[in-house]
Amino acid sequence: MADAKTLDDLFLDTLKDIYFAEKQIVKALPKMAKAATSSELKAGFEKHLQETQGHVDRLEQVFDLIGAPARGKTCEAILGIIEEAKEIMDEFKDSPALDAGLVSSAQAVEHYEIARYGTLKAWANQLGRSNVVKLLEATEQEEIATDKKLTQLGVGQVNRRAAA
Amino acid sequence: MADAKTLDDLFLDTLKDIYFAEKQIVKALPKMAKAATSSELKAGFEKHLQETQGHVDRLEQVFDLIGAPARGKTCEAILGIIEEAKEIMDEFKDSPALDAGLVSSAQAVEHYEIARYGTLKAWANQLGRSNVVKLLEATEQEEIATDKKLTQLGVGQVNRRAAA
Repeated sequence: MADAKTLDDLFLDTLKDIYFAEKQIVKALPKMAKAATSSELKAGFEKHLQETQGHVDRLEQVFDLIGAPARGKTCEAILGIIEEAKEIMDEFKDSPALDAGLVSSAQAVEHYEIARYGTLKAWANQLGRSNVVKLLEATEQEEIATDKKLTQLGVGQVNRRAAA
Repeated sequence: MADAKTLDDLFLDTLKDIYFAEKQIVKALPKMAKAATSSELKAGFEKHLQETQGHVDRLEQVFDLIGAPARGKTCEAILGIIEEAKEIMDEFKDSPALDAGLVSSAQAVEHYEIARYGTLKAWANQLGRSNVVKLLEATEQEEIATDKKLTQLGVGQVNRRAAA
């Protein structure tokens, strides 16, 4: 019989999950930037693409620190969230509400990441890996800031245009 | 040609999405409560099941207020999130880290809901439906409170036991 799995195993599984997710987001963001009609939203997606590439790099540093190869594991959650984003881009293609739908999709992505990084940070802390905590926290803070910016863009501009 | 879709259409689509999601969560929570080993976590899932039934009721009131039949629409995101929860329940069945995995799964669910209710609330506000805003905000606040309680339970108890 195999030994019981530990918190280290759960940490590594979840790390692989978010690594896969970040790489999917790197693929999805250029499509979202291309679809956006608001220039601010387009620029926001392009900026967040650069940040996301930095998040992939940070995760590779985490894999390195815990001595595991950087490998992803299929994340059904992010695939579902991105699938819904694609549906909106398709169904609202010529609608004034398209940008509002894109903001909504992006916030679902951000919240998934905020949940996962928050969890990973708490576990890394429990496992006494303060160097890992710092890397995870840096990304978590960028995701929270991006979510806030999306809310501002939605409420301040995009939703008003969608309802016009 | 069909008329361009409006923010009302986007609101209704997203309402159907979260209605489907809440009903899936009603099905998933008893399994998570059964799997949990911590009595506090078990009780937390049971309490949140009752709240979630209230969220379904509130959504039915929203459908009623906007004059649309209460119907769900397949939400790939919640299906993916719940699929990952099932994987953890299966793979960490006999592990001291099981409860930590359940907390993590539940927080991914909460964050999905926080994102969707936040968006729906902003759109309802834009559409001038203050009675709908109140219903959505009541649920959003309960989801935020549940997420905070899960963090407290994770950091204060479950993660420590997982690492023991």
